Amino acid sequence: MDNKMSNYIAKSKEEQEFLDHYNPGDYEPVSITVDAVVFGIMKAASGNYRKRDRQSLKILLVKREEYPYKDSYSLPGGFVLKSETLEDTLDRTLESKTGLKNIYREQLYTFSDVRRDPRMRIISCAYISLIDAKKVKINGAEWFDLKEAQNMQLAFDHNVILHEAVERMRGKINYTDIVFHMMPEEFTISELQEVYEIILDEKLLAPAFRRTIADKIADTGKMTGNAGHRPSRIFTRK
Amino acid sequence: MDNKMSNYIAKSKEEQEFLDHYNPGDYEPVSITVDAVVFGIMKAASGNYRKRDRQSLKILLVKREEYPYKDSYSLPGGFVLKSETLEDTLDRTLESKTGLKNIYREQLYTFSDVRRDPRMRIISCAYISLIDAKKVKINGAEWFDLKEAQNMQLAFDHNVILHEAVERMRGKINYTDIVFHMMPEEFTISELQEVYEIILDEKLLAPAFRRTIADKIADTGKMTGNAGHRPSRIFTRK
Repeated sequence: MDNKMSNYIAKSKEEQEFLDHYNPGDYEPVSITVDAVVFGIMKAASGNYRKRDRQSLKILLVKREEYPYKDSYSLPGGFVLKSETLEDTLDRTLESKTGLKNIYREQLYTFSDVRRDPRMRIISCAYISLIDAKKVKINGAEWFDLKEAQNMQLAFDHNVILHEAVERMRGKINYTDIVFHMMPEEFTISELQEVYEIILDEKLLAPAFRRTIADKIADTGKMTGNAGHRPSRIFTRK
Repeated sequence: MDNKMSNYIAKSKEEQEFLDHYNPGDYEPVSITVDAVVFGIMKAASGNYRKRDRQSLKILLVKREEYPYKDSYSLPGGFVLKSETLEDTLDRTLESKTGLKNIYREQLYTFSDVRRDPRMRIISCAYISLIDAKKVKINGAEWFDLKEAQNMQLAFDHNVILHEAVERMRGKINYTDIVFHMMPEEFTISELQEVYEIILDEKLLAPAFRRTIADKIADTGKMTGNAGHRPSRIFTRK
């Protein structure tokens, strides 16, 4: 093998010989992929006129152009190349399949069911990303309502991955700052509360919500000026 | 390949042909390992007589018998076989290298630095386990003080994995129940507080600590009966 990829120095001639004769081809091949669950909050597409557009939690899916699961939707993902870390693969894949660059991402979980891919043994490391969907342009992938995606038959075990991703995000929203990756720079408390409610899929009581997020936000001193609404304070992430 | 390992059914003759001719050997081989960070709390080995034995946070290490890093200490771990999930590998490896069975474990992170192993491209999925060290018998592995292990030169990137494991455990102790995997069935509040202090490596104020754990424990109605100590209430995990 090309040992130059490692800067490990053998401690003895015996060890160097061991490494020189180590043949990765002797082992059963396994492949590793990376899959991304990209969350955003957007106005739901709706033909109905509404006084205030309803927002909903969305995820990005891509239509598979190749076997297996051709024409099914899947999470954007791809194979890890020899020279890439998982994060390198994630960034390359996200850019080529969704157009997204430099977005927040965290490792979710590595999925290893032995039957998860009909091609060969493929283990997949999944990541979650949260983005401010209004600020980005998507190329090649499509936004789906989370609930719609959950009811689709996604490729591979992607329904399982999606389920875990939603659980993780809901679990983390209260003790981390990840929600702000989905928010614009400035927002009102009710806008922030709406995002929490969309993610948690439940209504929150305003006083309890204000206590929860009090330490995370700072008053900008500015007020909203929408005609027909009572002005609201504008906050930013602390 | 042996497509029988998957219960995927091709949707067309064309797809079946694609799968029949898919040759995993065409891809650059990658291997996957699992490594375990097993935490326990034990009395520090000490020749000094002390009125009360000091406890400390420990981890399990094994001495490597083979190249590379022969004679160095490493986390217990092993290669993922074709028929195994990551958890299967973890369980098999833990049993053969440490004697541990049926212990609490959770996936920590998958480490993918391209130079992390001098043999070939090996990606490792790390798990953390928390055990009640007083209740188990270890076979083949040795307990090390966490601080001592952190100052050793462990094999591969195991110092990095260990660092992440400690961060994760410290981060989770306050918003999860994982600490109870290290506790006996019944304990006093000060015993529980001592475990928190050992894990967090800081002194906690008793009233604040009691508030933190109030929802997690239940009074058994029993009291300690140690001679020479004021009796204390005995609690259990709620």
